[in-house]
Amino acid sequence: MSAAGNSTRPAPPHIGTLPGGPLGTIADVAGVTVGHCTLDQDALQTGVTVIRPHRGDPFVDKVPAAVSVINGFGKSIGLVQVEELGTLETPIALTNTFGVAALAQAQIRAAIRANPQIGREWSTVNPLVFECNDGYLNDIQALAVTEQHFNDAFDNASTQVASGSVGAGRGMSCFDLKGGIGNASRVAGVAGRDYTVGALVLANFGRLPMLTLDGTPLGRVLAERAAQLAAAAAATAAKPEQGSIIMIVATDAPLDARQLKRLSLRAAAGLARTGSVYGHGSGDIALAFSTAHAVPHDADFITLPPLVADARLDPLFRACADSVEQAIVDALWSAVSVTGRDGHRRLSLHDSVPDLAQLLKLTP
Amino acid sequence: MSAAGNSTRPAPPHIGTLPGGPLGTIADVAGVTVGHCTLDQDALQTGVTVIRPHRGDPFVDKVPAAVSVINGFGKSIGLVQVEELGTLETPIALTNTFGVAALAQAQIRAAIRANPQIGREWSTVNPLVFECNDGYLNDIQALAVTEQHFNDAFDNASTQVASGSVGAGRGMSCFDLKGGIGNASRVAGVAGRDYTVGALVLANFGRLPMLTLDGTPLGRVLAERAAQLAAAAAATAAKPEQGSIIMIVATDAPLDARQLKRLSLRAAAGLARTGSVYGHGSGDIALAFSTAHAVPHDADFITLPPLVADARLDPLFRACADSVEQAIVDALWSAVSVTGRDGHRRLSLHDSVPDLAQLLKLTP
Amino acid sequence: MSAAGNSTRPAPPHIGTLPGGPLGTIADVAGVTVGHCTLDQDALQTGVTVIRPHRGDPFVDKVPAAVSVINGFGKSIGLVQVEELGTLETPIALTNTFGVAALAQAQIRAAIRANPQIGREWSTVNPLVFECNDGYLNDIQALAVTEQHFNDAFDNASTQVASGSVGAGRGMSCFDLKGGIGNASRVAGVAGRDYTVGALVLANFGRLPMLTLDGTPLGRVLAERAAQLAAAAAATAAKPEQGSIIMIVATDAPLDARQLKRLSLRAAAGLARTGSVYGHGSGDIALAFSTAHAVPHDADFITLPPLVADARLDPLFRACADSVEQAIVDALWSAVSVTGRDGHRRLSLHDSVPDLAQLLKLTP
Amino acid sequence: MSAAGNSTRPAPPHIGTLPGGPLGTIADVAGVTVGHCTLDQDALQTGVTVIRPHRGDPFVDKVPAAVSVINGFGKSIGLVQVEELGTLETPIALTNTFGVAALAQAQIRAAIRANPQIGREWSTVNPLVFECNDGYLNDIQALAVTEQHFNDAFDNASTQVASGSVGAGRGMSCFDLKGGIGNASRVAGVAGRDYTVGALVLANFGRLPMLTLDGTPLGRVLAERAAQLAAAAAATAAKPEQGSIIMIVATDAPLDARQLKRLSLRAAAGLARTGSVYGHGSGDIALAFSTAHAVPHDADFITLPPLVADARLDPLFRACADSVEQAIVDALWSAVSVTGRDGHRRLSLHDSVPDLAQLLKLTP
Repeated sequence: MSAAGNSTRPAPPHIGTLPGGPLGTIADVAGVTVGHCTLDQDALQTGVTVIRPHRGDPFVDKVPAAVSVINGFGKSIGLVQVEELGTLETPIALTNTFGVAALAQAQIRAAIRANPQIGREWSTVNPLVFECNDGYLNDIQALAVTEQHFNDAFDNASTQVASGSVGAGRGMSCFDLKGGIGNASRVAGVAGRDYTVGALVLANFGRLPMLTLDGTPLGRVLAERAAQLAAAAAATAAKPEQGSIIMIVATDAPLDARQLKRLSLRAAAGLARTGSVYGHGSGDIALAFSTAHAVPHDADFITLPPLVADARLDPLFRACADSVEQAIVDALWSAVSVTGRDGHRRLSLHDSVPDLAQLLKLTP
Repeated sequence: MSAAGNSTRPAPPHIGTLPGGPLGTIADVAGVTVGHCTLDQDALQTGVTVIRPHRGDPFVDKVPAAVSVINGFGKSIGLVQVEELGTLETPIALTNTFGVAALAQAQIRAAIRANPQIGREWSTVNPLVFECNDGYLNDIQALAVTEQHFNDAFDNASTQVASGSVGAGRGMSCFDLKGGIGNASRVAGVAGRDYTVGALVLANFGRLPMLTLDGTPLGRVLAERAAQLAAAAAATAAKPEQGSIIMIVATDAPLDARQLKRLSLRAAAGLARTGSVYGHGSGDIALAFSTAHAVPHDADFITLPPLVADARLDPLFRACADSVEQAIVDALWSAVSVTGRDGHRRLSLHDSVPDLAQLLKLTP
Repeated sequence: MSAAGNSTRPAPPHIGTLPGGPLGTIADVAGVTVGHCTLDQDALQTGVTVIRPHRGDPFVDKVPAAVSVINGFGKSIGLVQVEELGTLETPIALTNTFGVAALAQAQIRAAIRANPQIGREWSTVNPLVFECNDGYLNDIQALAVTEQHFNDAFDNASTQVASGSVGAGRGMSCFDLKGGIGNASRVAGVAGRDYTVGALVLANFGRLPMLTLDGTPLGRVLAERAAQLAAAAAATAAKPEQGSIIMIVATDAPLDARQLKRLSLRAAAGLARTGSVYGHGSGDIALAFSTAHAVPHDADFITLPPLVADARLDPLFRACADSVEQAIVDALWSAVSVTGRDGHRRLSLHDSVPDLAQLLKLTP
Repeated sequence: MSAAGNSTRPAPPHIGTLPGGPLGTIADVAGVTVGHCTLDQDALQTGVTVIRPHRGDPFVDKVPAAVSVINGFGKSIGLVQVEELGTLETPIALTNTFGVAALAQAQIRAAIRANPQIGREWSTVNPLVFECNDGYLNDIQALAVTEQHFNDAFDNASTQVASGSVGAGRGMSCFDLKGGIGNASRVAGVAGRDYTVGALVLANFGRLPMLTLDGTPLGRVLAERAAQLAAAAAATAAKPEQGSIIMIVATDAPLDARQLKRLSLRAAAGLARTGSVYGHGSGDIALAFSTAHAVPHDADFITLPPLVADARLDPLFRACADSVEQAIVDALWSAVSVTGRDGHRRLSLHDSVPDLAQLLKLTP
């Protein structure tokens, strides 16, 4: 549960009118688990986050999936095949930009260990790795992320999903504040049945003046007010945004890849509501997958459950947008301040704005 | 000029921090003109709007352009060729869904009149027509739009651009209120030069509870409060959204088609900030064009001005998102209440919310 | 049946090794019917072809479908919504470039007649119309195609499908010879079951020297040899290709829209084998649909049959490429010479090459 | 030079009618160089090929580029950013599927060495690595490719470009024969100027019966005839194709990214003419780049040379298709037989077909 562990802190505003799930994380979608591995050693402020779409082997039981590239200034890998085949076949790994290669290697080795036929009798495997650039806090040139970090994150996967300055989120910045991992979920009714949409974001985008929190232009207020932040903002203001956001959306609604592509694009709506205009330098990518059925690696025919009709998708679209917006809020809300390479420091939202609750008119 | 003509009405909130252009319309981009033809006869509440990208003949001097299909539940025509060739070669026409064919025919005839070589020595012409479904107010089955209406709108084109319940916007609904044509512009600095981005929207999307006006969740307030609206909303609440929005973005910044595609997608950010999640039934399409250079119909080589570097696009991206959001606000702000087929009636925002200024904390 | 009616003419070469269906047309896919309406009046050499995907109402029972735009220099309409929703909801209409608007209007009226709720309680309808430019033979500026021609073609639809200089193919040219409508089908085995893939093309592309017939570079031979043709070729050789090809692919294999998109792209392989390099001015578009299941207009959930696994698609891919190549051959083989506007004349392949059988080493 | 070193061997057929360049390789495009690093150690039969678009640093002087994913069953990386920004900023690296991660790492390190600002003051770098699966001959699970191999290939880059069983082509198979690296070029006139199009392919696709060589269905002949091959084919015939082809197209024609995307798609035509239908399991990807201008990493505006008008592109389209077809022929023609892991052996075309010249009616 995201903001847990700080009982005096008010809960963040609830985005929209749909109810959240019990955990408030992507793990509200049954079967989904998440593990982090965090590197916190002086100039190395980075890590790995692994999302397992189900508890089995996704190479054997692939998962319907689709991607929306909202702004393609990014180095994520594996998207070409997801687009063509509409499935993913490894866990989803997140890390820093220069950790992608190590995690791809790790995914390949893990897949071969589980299925020694890969690259022999069987086709090869498509490792899926997403990234953001944490170079402000992290010595990204050190290429510190290794296969072992992937394995550790994978082994840590559970339904207890931490948010904030953890895993791949350790070194990330968001609106010139500390960003990182955020989670949220929503429950939406379709034709009398309830489905869950969960989001996990790796939030590393935005300049302070853009920050909008549940409709409140908080960034403008902060940018004018806080001297400390103003100085930080001034130092970076001349430079264009170099951030990014990865938005992973899970659902238990029965959707095919085409529908998941539609769903994933609605992450762009949630993102925009926080102040983003999908800046040039921001790799803004959303991936959506469904846990409602699997696509076996070796089969002649694929049997699908009845799919939600497209004309009934609106509640899920709203759940996606709201979950993503809420997950971005969660990333800011859950993050702790971090100091990294060359003394660079990102203050958390809470450390930056002691009177946050009043500003947002929240009840503590 | 958008909200002109009602001196007692406060100006709408100014979206974002970039300044607007002098006219506050798409015509702030030099050379762009717009004409309307409005049908207001009992059950026929519809019309045509024509945007001319420059004062010349766009078949002879084509204009770099690109489209982002945010949600493709739409019947607009001409997009395939714009995507392939990166140019438009007719004016941009807007009308109701079932008027598209008549306007395509009109565009073809107008192009042949101007260039009798078309379809003979020369290739054919690609008519560009966008649409939204105004069937709630308008008897769309009457197929009332004709070629003459296109010609009239074309002949009316000028830099004095009306907004609201005019032209193609006559019968449109937006957030269960009266929608229609909206305009806005922003000026953004790139490398020491000022460029203008202008937007014209045909706003016909959204259910009332979603309406967010400059960050204020106005729709929720209204949906709870006004009995009159509540009844209207109740009558339609069970039905999914069948609206759409067409967003035309013009700029004088020198951009090529690939960059214009990037720019056009930022319309999705402005749209999302008004409450849209790109509903299933909403054809949400953005087209962007640049007036900075023309592509001659018959040439061996195309000479381009120096293009804005991609890394300098962020101010233009923001100008696009802000213009589109402002143009949607303008559509609501400028519209007048309209009664149409079968006694259907859409109240304007101002008629629905007498205390709008107080709600939005505006100074009259 | 394509080349029927000329008992002395040898059958064209059989492309590839897969067997054809009994009719050798797109109607080998059970349920598919085709109707033509041909205009043959002096300078008016054009027409309409309508493909009905099944005998019911496609608005009520939509058909899974997808499009590959191989070269988007084209004015076909309806593609945006097919791409978004993965279905078609009207018959497929083919005509000349400037007949598109009339047929769109015709499709809208026909849909409203069948379902008066359209544009009222229900959403609007997405008319699907494809085109090629027959302006060399046909006075395309006359805009001679009307709604009645659509209705006539629709009423003519049957499983007896003519090829050649008929329907929309009446005025079309292909490799500087007479082109038009072509048909073919192939039967492919997938996991022990036989599926049919049928193709109908509207062939209007290519310059003579490019023509490759079942691997034989026939065009080069002809271009050098025939004085009559050489003169015709010389007259047009300086002008870039302005043709196009529309390739409609039907199958009874259970495929979803994503798979149909993959299938439709294989039309590009068949097209290339005839000599095309997808010329700049050629609108080369393929649409594939499956008859294996329907998507009801109004439903909460969509039940699908078990789908062919992607890893088993290769025989269908081959059937698509072979059918399209064979259908192009059929268009040339079946066409008769036509004289049109301004005395323009296109000779049929057979009229151009009396010794065709010897050149191709065919057994009469 | 491709088939050099075997003076008794006839030259392969010349595809099409456009003339080739003096080298007959991608290096006919001025400034382009290629280096190979070949691993030939028992079960390790693999390697690396590096294409440098110019002799400078492509991060500092980026190159306009675009990709067509013809069939996306592939694990190549870097394509997302090329699609968004229309440039490449590293050399192009080719290797086996499981070598992609090592080469991405190598590209990152090389870029940082050259520009230590990367990931600090500057944005990160987008490594571009393509792959095919050489697992039949090569022990791909050994992950034998390392950063040093990339560096060696890079250092080897020159205008003397070897084809066949070298570099990344060492372990590749094509039509059940030995495949690998192939090269070709064509010179095409546009508006009185000559431009060169060069292709380098990594050919690893196809089953024997599909092989078509300059229009001759050689594969069918061979499949029926050669017992040795028949046995090999039988052994693998039941398995679907797991190959792929990477097609790199260079040109000195001034084209922007949109036009390069159009150009790159014409590789699909050349590929189809060799017998491919873009099989399900084949990652068929084409990248095209232009050397006519560079995009500086840090600039406010980008100055472009006059671009070839789209209506003049046909000769370049043909040059692309012909070059790619010729390069595939070159790969087969230049390859030597190779024995790899578990005694797997691929015979070269020449070793398989001693009477190849007669079959193709070639003059020795």
